[in-house]
Amino acid sequence: MSEFKHRNPKTGGVRPVKPKWAIERDRARRAGTAPDTIWLFGLHAVRDALANPRRQCRRLIVTPNAAARLADAIAASGLEPEISDPRRFSAPLDPQSVHQGAALEAEPLDWGGLTALCAPAKSDPAPLAVLLDRVTDPHNVGAILRSAEVFGARAVIAPRHHSAPETGALAKSASGALERQPYLRIRNLGDAMQELSGLGYALVGLDGAAATEIGHAVAAAAGQPLGLVLGSEGAGLRARTRELCTGLARIGAAAEFASLNVSNAAAVALYAASRRG
Amino acid sequence: MSEFKHRNPKTGGVRPVKPKWAIERDRARRAGTAPDTIWLFGLHAVRDALANPRRQCRRLIVTPNAAARLADAIAASGLEPEISDPRRFSAPLDPQSVHQGAALEAEPLDWGGLTALCAPAKSDPAPLAVLLDRVTDPHNVGAILRSAEVFGARAVIAPRHHSAPETGALAKSASGALERQPYLRIRNLGDAMQELSGLGYALVGLDGAAATEIGHAVAAAAGQPLGLVLGSEGAGLRARTRELCTGLARIGAAAEFASLNVSNAAAVALYAASRRG
Repeated sequence: MSEFKHRNPKTGGVRPVKPKWAIERDRARRAGTAPDTIWLFGLHAVRDALANPRRQCRRLIVTPNAAARLADAIAASGLEPEISDPRRFSAPLDPQSVHQGAALEAEPLDWGGLTALCAPAKSDPAPLAVLLDRVTDPHNVGAILRSAEVFGARAVIAPRHHSAPETGALAKSASGALERQPYLRIRNLGDAMQELSGLGYALVGLDGAAATEIGHAVAAAAGQPLGLVLGSEGAGLRARTRELCTGLARIGAAAEFASLNVSNAAAVALYAASRRG
Repeated sequence: MSEFKHRNPKTGGVRPVKPKWAIERDRARRAGTAPDTIWLFGLHAVRDALANPRRQCRRLIVTPNAAARLADAIAASGLEPEISDPRRFSAPLDPQSVHQGAALEAEPLDWGGLTALCAPAKSDPAPLAVLLDRVTDPHNVGAILRSAEVFGARAVIAPRHHSAPETGALAKSASGALERQPYLRIRNLGDAMQELSGLGYALVGLDGAAATEIGHAVAAAAGQPLGLVLGSEGAGLRARTRELCTGLARIGAAAEFASLNVSNAAAVALYAASRRG
């Protein structure tokens, strides 16, 4: 339990508290699921994973109803589904999961290395990437993957620890984008930023108190590879992350109270960056 | 129960299912809370509500720890707090609510009428507004309120029924914006759109399949009042809502799969609109 020393948000006390994804992981472990697999759930997420040739699927548990609705995807996948009684759905999921009668055990996707994924090319000399500095909420990361896909970012890059892991909840919020949009978990964010700088990237950090407006900041990187760096809502960018940015930018008027949700900030920054020329 | 005829997302069946906010409301009713009040929770939301002179507060339940952290806000409000044991926190909240030891019973805010709130003025001849067509997720509506505040929209307008109600969960996602950003629940969205048209508003509906890109659509409304109309993620804009729009616009490239989360789409549209000149 020593891995979770957060302040308990309910009581304000500092006794260890296990985050939801760890409960999910431990439940999967008790159920005999291999530690390196994840359980995806929900008709949309399961259908997209089954249709993804890069996704290694291991076990599919479905209700008769879900089996009928996923019939084409199941047939195409070649996977033998286990049919489960809807009233005793047997997949090791969080009881709150809106699984719609479908759960799929699968391996995380392997997106390869940072340089291979993000290096500028003749056909795409000014790629976009998103870097997340300890964004732990799976709903926010899921929404960011959707936005990254819409605006054609090469990857969403986050440190392996202290980031929302690839889970069923994240996949559900990503609404299919997890299958298509690289979510690259790296060992160290600072190292990744230096690697991107070496590839010619400008790195713009989002900060509500910055003097430069995002539209101006990204215009300065016109024709150049660009990384957008976002911190967690509470803590913002860490000192080292901040130092490694080419510049900082804010979205909207600098306001005393107002602030954007982190996935909303990412969407606006991606939109601005995609129009930088 | 006849008010909830949704398809059950877990089983796929069509038996009635009660949404979370209705469970919350019914729990409050059983606890003797007046039907027209809401329970706000969490240190941030409670502090902002106590500090809001427009917010009518009725009952404050806090743990000793939360009472200490909110001491200034409580003193300024003149409200007599009820101190509760953290292990038996007595406010009628959803057990999953991250209340941090603070819960406040309050009346919904009265934002007045649509025309008073949204009419163009000499000092602000081209106001912005957001209209939501049956967006029911409180987290999305909360995030939209934050974005509306950041980009200076006059109001977020939604039908009284089939929209996320003003609840503690919405207030928490809004991170304080619920106290400052008008969230106007009207009887009929079509009527509100016609009222805004009468005030000179252009009404741009968001639709992933539209031919016009959002940047172009809002540029056409430069110098003019502008309403951004967003539908629910599943169903999109209803036929009548679509008809009452001045035009439709998409965000990003028209993609076969990719789509934005509704709060992310609202943030991008608000950013684009705030820069329309």
